[in-house]
Amino acid sequence: MPKVSDSDLSERRSDILAAARMCFVTYGYDGATVSRLEKATGKSRGAIFHHFQNKETLFRTVAHRDMLRMTELASTRGMIGLIRYILEEPDLINWWSLRVEITRRIRVDEELRDTWDADQKALRAAVTDRLTEQRDSGRLRTDIDLETTIQLLELTLEGVMSHLGSDRVSDRLPEALDLIEQSLRA
Amino acid sequence: MPKVSDSDLSERRSDILAAARMCFVTYGYDGATVSRLEKATGKSRGAIFHHFQNKETLFRTVAHRDMLRMTELASTRGMIGLIRYILEEPDLINWWSLRVEITRRIRVDEELRDTWDADQKALRAAVTDRLTEQRDSGRLRTDIDLETTIQLLELTLEGVMSHLGSDRVSDRLPEALDLIEQSLRA
Repeated sequence: MPKVSDSDLSERRSDILAAARMCFVTYGYDGATVSRLEKATGKSRGAIFHHFQNKETLFRTVAHRDMLRMTELASTRGMIGLIRYILEEPDLINWWSLRVEITRRIRVDEELRDTWDADQKALRAAVTDRLTEQRDSGRLRTDIDLETTIQLLELTLEGVMSHLGSDRVSDRLPEALDLIEQSLRA
Repeated sequence: MPKVSDSDLSERRSDILAAARMCFVTYGYDGATVSRLEKATGKSRGAIFHHFQNKETLFRTVAHRDMLRMTELASTRGMIGLIRYILEEPDLINWWSLRVEITRRIRVDEELRDTWDADQKALRAAVTDRLTEQRDSGRLRTDIDLETTIQLLELTLEGVMSHLGSDRVSDRLPEALDLIEQSLRA
């Protein structure tokens, strides 16, 4: 058997994850059957489950990867920056459908719940760091406590994602985000 | 057969709807099997489907009733008032789980989508009326257009519901709502 390099392996994993993600988004967790996963990834079940132990693991990895991406964006652009990015990036718009599945799966998959909690904490930590920096440099109001500011931003993120998930037109979202941003600015 | 009065009939319908609602909240649409619905309502399938044609109709009626209630609250208390009410009313906290099911069902149930769209329009109309009144009486900023104001409030409603649906602690939500309210006030 020819030797497969680490980067090839990691690329294959990544391809499977991207295709599986769309499959979960489209059909939901239960609806993403093994044969649909095979069709979406273009790989046999043997190949898929060589990389990921089972469907649960595959889903957890998909969810975790999305959260890592969000956290990275939040730490470089801030929460409002992340939200604006989500509005423009079709791939992230789909995130809400996945989020709905995560909310459901969390009730039955304890391991997912643990990863999800940890991922939420990491996102919150990234946002806290960034806000602290902006308060210190005088760009944000300091008469609102940090916890309330984070709560408002999380609320906004959830609201935007939920809104996008509902297929409605959202032409005033940027202006609504401006208002939120203004309400926090020094 | 003894004659059943209209008010008895309406009460029975109402009892079935309340129990079915909790069943949909707990198990999801697919998970709310007919036998679970029988157990939750304490009625036979014959009795349930005497009042509601089938499970689809039952679910649509549950969803519609919730939206009527929200619209009524929004028209008497305003959107922020509605949101604060949701925070305190355990029954409405569950609404998010139902909302998640609605989002899924809308893709496959056209009639639900139509009712849902009409219900959303009614909610929006109630909010618009109330905001217009408040702007006219000088309590709200008029330098933000009405559409943007509504968008911000809808975003907040969605964010709060999504937040409540995620089982997380939300002790700063009232303060975050204060900030939103302040940002709109004249």
